[in-house]
Amino acid sequence: MNPKINFTPGPSQLYFTVEDHVRTAFRDGVPTLSHRSKKFESYYKDTVEGLRELLKLPADYHIYFTGSATEIWERLIQNLVEEKSFHLVNGSFSKRFFEIAQQLGKIPSKNEVSNGKGFEDSLSIPTDTELIAVTHNETSTGVSVPLDYIYNLRSKNPGALIAVDAVSSLPFPDFNYSKLDSVFFSVQKGFGLPAGLGVWMVNDQCLAKADALLSKGISIGSYHNLPSLKAHAVKNQTPETPNVLSIYVLSKVIGDMIRRGISNIRKETEYKATLLYQTLDSHPHLKPFVADKTFRSKTVIVADCGEYTEKITSKLLENGMQPGDGYGAAKKSQLRFANFPTHSKEQFELLADSLA
Amino acid sequence: MNPKINFTPGPSQLYFTVEDHVRTAFRDGVPTLSHRSKKFESYYKDTVEGLRELLKLPADYHIYFTGSATEIWERLIQNLVEEKSFHLVNGSFSKRFFEIAQQLGKIPSKNEVSNGKGFEDSLSIPTDTELIAVTHNETSTGVSVPLDYIYNLRSKNPGALIAVDAVSSLPFPDFNYSKLDSVFFSVQKGFGLPAGLGVWMVNDQCLAKADALLSKGISIGSYHNLPSLKAHAVKNQTPETPNVLSIYVLSKVIGDMIRRGISNIRKETEYKATLLYQTLDSHPHLKPFVADKTFRSKTVIVADCGEYTEKITSKLLENGMQPGDGYGAAKKSQLRFANFPTHSKEQFELLADSLA
Repeated sequence: MNPKINFTPGPSQLYFTVEDHVRTAFRDGVPTLSHRSKKFESYYKDTVEGLRELLKLPADYHIYFTGSATEIWERLIQNLVEEKSFHLVNGSFSKRFFEIAQQLGKIPSKNEVSNGKGFEDSLSIPTDTELIAVTHNETSTGVSVPLDYIYNLRSKNPGALIAVDAVSSLPFPDFNYSKLDSVFFSVQKGFGLPAGLGVWMVNDQCLAKADALLSKGISIGSYHNLPSLKAHAVKNQTPETPNVLSIYVLSKVIGDMIRRGISNIRKETEYKATLLYQTLDSHPHLKPFVADKTFRSKTVIVADCGEYTEKITSKLLENGMQPGDGYGAAKKSQLRFANFPTHSKEQFELLADSLA
Repeated sequence: MNPKINFTPGPSQLYFTVEDHVRTAFRDGVPTLSHRSKKFESYYKDTVEGLRELLKLPADYHIYFTGSATEIWERLIQNLVEEKSFHLVNGSFSKRFFEIAQQLGKIPSKNEVSNGKGFEDSLSIPTDTELIAVTHNETSTGVSVPLDYIYNLRSKNPGALIAVDAVSSLPFPDFNYSKLDSVFFSVQKGFGLPAGLGVWMVNDQCLAKADALLSKGISIGSYHNLPSLKAHAVKNQTPETPNVLSIYVLSKVIGDMIRRGISNIRKETEYKATLLYQTLDSHPHLKPFVADKTFRSKTVIVADCGEYTEKITSKLLENGMQPGDGYGAAKKSQLRFANFPTHSKEQFELLADSLA
């Protein structure tokens, strides 16, 4: 028997409409649909147009699909960096993005802070940096980089592209996409789908950079390089046989979110985050891991539970709630709580009551 | 309303147990399972051990998961080729494999024959070739390369690794894996799953080659390079959050196939192929596209239908059967029929009757 409410930050609880959409998909033959068929193209178009509407993407942004957000780390570096990327590292996932640049033979540099901390106001970023990589929301530690901080990176570094890993934050953040160049996520977090699909958004400057690298004779990968993704996307297709079922279900969940209203989703997310942080701040034994409120994530909330970790976990499980373990070395001393659109206010109220 | 029987060669008709397994998966919380959980590891292990048993893989073979078989083309070239691959090209898919090697900055060469043809007995393959790429079954044309032909490539080219694209043939071919080095497929063909997962099998020589390239300072990719896949696979894990649902369903379908018996599946495939080729050979207007019986695929059967293509298609659709279109330029003059384990003898008898 599974607990009724799953707060692990990913894969998290399914968006509450997903199972119905999967059932409909099987009834309508979606799992066996050719990715070169008109019907697939229409689902692809629904997904892309829905996402444009939900996130208010500017016209010069393009949306492509990959197997995972991990793949997008690799594709970003391959397609947008000849030599020098700069990484803001504050946890396991931002660190891995940096390491992938090393593995691909680039010369990345980084500013690294301790887990749970934000970044200094002023970073010394080399002027010849081609790409600045920011993890908006560190799933491992619950640290979120404020939007203004990210926009400032761009105004201070006009020669660099800004890539934002929004894996565990979207659709919550109301990004000003005109101040960013690439944003990406995977579907098993805030969108509440089964894992197996990454969504990569890039603007025209990214496409131009990939073309420039290619014309210099630099290898930017093959089927999933930006020119190939673009050439297929204009036909509402993918280069390879993709996870058709996931693209279909994503289109349906995005439609559900549009009908619910993104501003409602955001307001509810704020409410639920405030409630949980208040509970943790006033708790005799627990406290938020991220001390500085400026850097506290609204979508992945990490609690320092110390010696109470096991006791709290048992109590929550008894009440039908599955908390997420702390990440890595913090497995025995922290708990993580996803605050995604599928988690209702009532579920967070029950969580807060059970913790109090 | 979808036709009852889908003969398109991929994504093809689902294996008949898939929908039930997906339903069970949702009931048991599989779609939200962490890929670092013990439960996921047990499904991963089931899939790998099941595949070992079904295909009788030697102990020095390893099984890894990717997003697609297209991805495997790229990973194969990255991990196993410093400069020189050699490609047997006889259709769109084998050609694309060759082109990917070019895109990745390697120096591939090829032997290319016309669509529908097999290869000469003796190919002149450069002695410094590192990898020979063979598409066992060209999904675009219905040409299959005989197993002995592939084994001979290895004995004649002892310095080269042999990689076999078995995307649209497995689990039918009874490969002698000890005479090959890497074999791969994607799940939406013979295994009858929804698309979104590639399965890459490699032997120890492949792992050694990737290590050798890496120690020479050559980039072999990042999260999906062979050392990374291997390091995670020994823990029954994947480097990234994978398509967990698909890995689970694959384990179940493999279990079903083991219980049915691989020799039964193979015998039925032979029977169905013989029946359809006989029907085409004796037909007044249709004929098999592949003239030379030695090279006729048992799993993707292509019919030259010429001016009768539309008429035949309509008749089959009326009888509840969906044929696959001819590939590319042959869209209006050929039909393709998948002969996969999910297609029953009765369905093929109905198909043969409807064509006759």
